[in-house]
Amino acid sequence: MDNLKLNEVETAARLEKFLVDKLKQSGMTGYVLGLSGGVDSSLSAAIAVRAVGEDNVLGVMMPYSFSSESSVTDAEKVAKSFGFRVEKIDISPMINAYFPDLKAVDKIRTGNKMARERMSILFDKAHENNYLVCGTSNRTEICLGYGTWYGDVACSVNPIGMLYKTQVRQMAEYYGVPEEVLKKTPSADLWPGQTDEDELGLEYARADELLFLMIDRGITERQKLNKAGIEDAFIDRAVGILNRFYFKRHLPEIADLGLKPIPDKITLT
Amino acid sequence: MDNLKLNEVETAARLEKFLVDKLKQSGMTGYVLGLSGGVDSSLSAAIAVRAVGEDNVLGVMMPYSFSSESSVTDAEKVAKSFGFRVEKIDISPMINAYFPDLKAVDKIRTGNKMARERMSILFDKAHENNYLVCGTSNRTEICLGYGTWYGDVACSVNPIGMLYKTQVRQMAEYYGVPEEVLKKTPSADLWPGQTDEDELGLEYARADELLFLMIDRGITERQKLNKAGIEDAFIDRAVGILNRFYFKRHLPEIADLGLKPIPDKITLT
Repeated sequence: MDNLKLNEVETAARLEKFLVDKLKQSGMTGYVLGLSGGVDSSLSAAIAVRAVGEDNVLGVMMPYSFSSESSVTDAEKVAKSFGFRVEKIDISPMINAYFPDLKAVDKIRTGNKMARERMSILFDKAHENNYLVCGTSNRTEICLGYGTWYGDVACSVNPIGMLYKTQVRQMAEYYGVPEEVLKKTPSADLWPGQTDEDELGLEYARADELLFLMIDRGITERQKLNKAGIEDAFIDRAVGILNRFYFKRHLPEIADLGLKPIPDKITLT
Repeated sequence: MDNLKLNEVETAARLEKFLVDKLKQSGMTGYVLGLSGGVDSSLSAAIAVRAVGEDNVLGVMMPYSFSSESSVTDAEKVAKSFGFRVEKIDISPMINAYFPDLKAVDKIRTGNKMARERMSILFDKAHENNYLVCGTSNRTEICLGYGTWYGDVACSVNPIGMLYKTQVRQMAEYYGVPEEVLKKTPSADLWPGQTDEDELGLEYARADELLFLMIDRGITERQKLNKAGIEDAFIDRAVGILNRFYFKRHLPEIADLGLKPIPDKITLT
């Protein structure tokens, strides 16, 4: 669909400026990000390198013992190709300390625990290096709540959170992300053989089209969506997921007592 | 200061109704919360018990090996007095797996790692029990960013986030929180001997007065604040902290590409 096609040069300039500006505002000196060997984190890393320089970017690979081999080898390929440094931290000891018999536990629970462990490591590495945590979640995932609340979606700032998954692929190609990464089947790698599209029950390309039409074009009439080639069952599934996980797009709700919201900044006179 | 004084009966009714409503909306069956033996989590637990019943509340004590003995014994006292069940999970194995030589590391880093470990355990226990995570951060902490981003401040819903610390004490007394807890010096217990007020460099009672005047009354003229008995050095410290940590009161900023915000709910026509 043509609507999702980005002007690559303009988009890259905006995303890089964002990372430059946020770093300056924060007073920090670089970005740390989790490198999974997938296209999202590879693109975030590429943008960060172009924005603030390869010396100021640290990629952290955080495999669990059953993570696919390629998650680490592909991440290393990405780091080598963009010239930034990486660190590898095996999360198995921390996870196994909490779940001594991992296989006995629901996969959702182990997946969430791993996602939050990785988040906490990234913030720790950020503190150690005086860096910010650069996010790697795309707009499709955020719309569908496909991520762990206070886990992989949590970061300091996110350069790719407005890009739908298909746009992430387009920009990743533009930045020269290695072929192996571009061709990979998207997976959160939370258990062997997992793929995003199976778990969501939605193909990214069609989900992106639908989300774009509904959110960015404001088209919520079934008839019009059907006319654009999207059938009802698909629409219902996507809208159901988006509505169900709205809370993941918010901070926790606080009981209202009629007080004023806390301002970002108080200026004394 | 009279302004901070709450009508206890009305306030309790609102806070309990909030927890009842949120549970109903979510389809979950109870609340899990971290019990530190301090006044904030004790009050949250008391509200939850009165709202949804003692059988539907689980308190989790998550000491680290150097946590004060009283953090556990006081939490047990609170649980016994309100009749809800508790679980104790020692976080030392997970923390030590990541920091084999904890003492060599900056206290801020270890404190943050522990706060995020506890958050991830609470969400895991919530999933296990089909519960929500009940927050335990008060308004003073939220204003001053005194907490770990995606750590202790992170939860599903928070009944006490609009209560200043002095109001937490008032309500805790009203609910009958045990004397030992009410009398304790506030501490995040992130290292031996830590106290909140030392670390913040602010006493809660005066910070609450100042925050209330500035935020809820809209008074930001130094002269008027001085007239209310608050000196410039104190004002500058509090405002400096509030402004510096504004980001902890937000989700991560996302690079803008001119797209529409994602709605909470899409209604098809």
